[in-house]
Amino acid sequence: MPAAGQPLRSWVSAANGKDCDFPIQNLPYGVFSMAGESPRCGVAIGDMIVDLATCETRGLLDAGGTFARPQLNDFIALGRDKWDEIRDRLTGLLAEGGDDSLPLVAMADATLHLPIRVTEFTDFYASKNHAFNVGVLFRGPENALPAQWTHMPIGYNGRASSVVVSGTEIRRPMGQVKGEAGPEWTACRRLDLELELGAIVGADSRMGERVSVEEAEQMIFGYVLLNDWSARDIQAWEYQPLGPFQSKALGTTISPWIVTQAALEPFRCKGAARVNPLLPYLQESRPGFYDMTIGWTMNGQAMGRTNYNVMYYSSAQQLAHHTESGCPMRVGDLLGSGTISGPGPEQTGALLEMTQGGRDAVRVNGEDRTFIEDGDEVGLYAFAEGGGYRVGFGPCHGRILPANE
Amino acid sequence: MPAAGQPLRSWVSAANGKDCDFPIQNLPYGVFSMAGESPRCGVAIGDMIVDLATCETRGLLDAGGTFARPQLNDFIALGRDKWDEIRDRLTGLLAEGGDDSLPLVAMADATLHLPIRVTEFTDFYASKNHAFNVGVLFRGPENALPAQWTHMPIGYNGRASSVVVSGTEIRRPMGQVKGEAGPEWTACRRLDLELELGAIVGADSRMGERVSVEEAEQMIFGYVLLNDWSARDIQAWEYQPLGPFQSKALGTTISPWIVTQAALEPFRCKGAARVNPLLPYLQESRPGFYDMTIGWTMNGQAMGRTNYNVMYYSSAQQLAHHTESGCPMRVGDLLGSGTISGPGPEQTGALLEMTQGGRDAVRVNGEDRTFIEDGDEVGLYAFAEGGGYRVGFGPCHGRILPANE
Repeated sequence: MPAAGQPLRSWVSAANGKDCDFPIQNLPYGVFSMAGESPRCGVAIGDMIVDLATCETRGLLDAGGTFARPQLNDFIALGRDKWDEIRDRLTGLLAEGGDDSLPLVAMADATLHLPIRVTEFTDFYASKNHAFNVGVLFRGPENALPAQWTHMPIGYNGRASSVVVSGTEIRRPMGQVKGEAGPEWTACRRLDLELELGAIVGADSRMGERVSVEEAEQMIFGYVLLNDWSARDIQAWEYQPLGPFQSKALGTTISPWIVTQAALEPFRCKGAARVNPLLPYLQESRPGFYDMTIGWTMNGQAMGRTNYNVMYYSSAQQLAHHTESGCPMRVGDLLGSGTISGPGPEQTGALLEMTQGGRDAVRVNGEDRTFIEDGDEVGLYAFAEGGGYRVGFGPCHGRILPANE
Repeated sequence: MPAAGQPLRSWVSAANGKDCDFPIQNLPYGVFSMAGESPRCGVAIGDMIVDLATCETRGLLDAGGTFARPQLNDFIALGRDKWDEIRDRLTGLLAEGGDDSLPLVAMADATLHLPIRVTEFTDFYASKNHAFNVGVLFRGPENALPAQWTHMPIGYNGRASSVVVSGTEIRRPMGQVKGEAGPEWTACRRLDLELELGAIVGADSRMGERVSVEEAEQMIFGYVLLNDWSARDIQAWEYQPLGPFQSKALGTTISPWIVTQAALEPFRCKGAARVNPLLPYLQESRPGFYDMTIGWTMNGQAMGRTNYNVMYYSSAQQLAHHTESGCPMRVGDLLGSGTISGPGPEQTGALLEMTQGGRDAVRVNGEDRTFIEDGDEVGLYAFAEGGGYRVGFGPCHGRILPANE
């Protein structure tokens, strides 16, 4: 956690508010557009966006013209030294006494877009509480935690084409489920969220070569909030033996702002205690998690809330494992952490767990919910706090539309 | 099967040979380069390649300049009417009496590249023989065929970044496997192939919208041979509950030539008999398979060989199922058919099945094999024959390099 005392302040006054997600210590990257204009890259500060493309045109920053593009991939591909240089430069420009002629736009007037072209999407399963809770519901307590779970980060390839930015409406899926008398074709009856953090891969690796946990950490550009919408009834019928497929392809919502690894660095901390030693290729030389509150809301009501430090495998461990076979990774790959759940029901990141598989309804604004109903809106949030400021992700939300039957 | 009689002949004499994979009836698309030149699009004819980029420069074809690009994606995205127009035009130019000033290069002098930028890769599991055989080995005969198998095409998302073109050497993966005394870190000891056909998606679908089997069929541009290299020991330890992951990410080899749906049309036929009726969204109004021999070799020796008509779900059914949740599909998506195996051991498309899980070695050029050894080369082939010509895929091969331990 950062040292106490007076934190650095910005001449953008809203950035200095105690509960502001976007102080000068954060500087998350996104892609925005103004009415009638093309999408381009920006950085959030307080209630404003720094127009990085215009900064580059004016010679204030140098990113090889990449900030004028409609996704951050090309900027990210410039590498860690460039990420550090731009962060240092923006910190100087935005600090009190910096350059108050910087081109800013009001975030309220901007449209926020998907910040990256998602090259591929991999989803992991790295909260032991979640793995156990869901395992009990799908397979019973004796088979809940798979045998290899404490030895490796279990993951599966998700569908990149269905990753959308916060605010995109999500259509309730149709699908095949197990009915009393055989398979049925139906609108999903058990629609759920999954509260996750997504890591953005910022460097390529080569086919046939592995990366270590330390190298993997250097390859991560930053993080987004990630809601892996899940159709539990479709999942239960389809997922054996090859894993979830259409149950996870209805949409995955990510936050528009990528919080960089650099911004989270002061909040670095340990994760969950190890049940057994890991094989050397998964061991990390320093803690790989962040002391960060993460939670979700439904129709504006606070629901599950926990801390990212409950996780068992870090993004760097997941990325290292992803390359063990020689699988090449690419800039723009998105790695979902897996649902983040603490031990108690009020700390869970999915309705499946919170309601014990739909058995115990929860109250949401005076109504019962076991799963998500049409018109419901789910929001995610996360922030790390300390040293007199907060590094937050801003909103990440989506509303469910009725199925096209 | 096409009518008997004298088939159309080409002025490219090698195209008229009885066993030539690339007669004028085929015209498969690929990407090639000559020494010191950039990759561009071409069509195979006999032992030659039609240089489509140069054809376009000379005004012989019109594809909006897309043939000069190093992948076929942009051409494919022009749509089915354009595919038909170019095929008709090339048939006229290449037929006897056509234009023998057409720009051709010798295939032997060209380097063949990955024909498409693989947007995403999905692998299915659509041969009932294979599903049953492998199910027995992984889970025993009573749980061999998953309950939903005869009701839906089971698939999982694979890794697009590890799809490579025929001829690329494949590194034996390292990985975590189940050992006697706990997990072990080792070079894969049970390396296998999977004989598959890959369908290339040629049109986008929109998020939240489903496509019917008929619409899906119209979206398929063509097919490649596909070897889904598989690390069986890594797979056995990792694959429950979320499916295969690193065991399938070491590399997937595809043929350089995409045989179009149009070329295979005369060979259309029924697949395996249905065990039970399918739900309406998966029913097809006409047969969805091709009467096509498909097989593999090891170090030049013929190994398993069967017919694509043993399959239970067609690519169109798989693609329709892929959209049931509203998952958007994109030009360049690659759908693996799943391993193609007939009922007998000599008809299987994987060593795992052929050797009963490594129990019964097979002889390869006088040596015993249970799984693939370092230096072994696996080749795939497929062709449909009738009407006096053969539509083939050309070679699709890969050699295994020792692990980087």
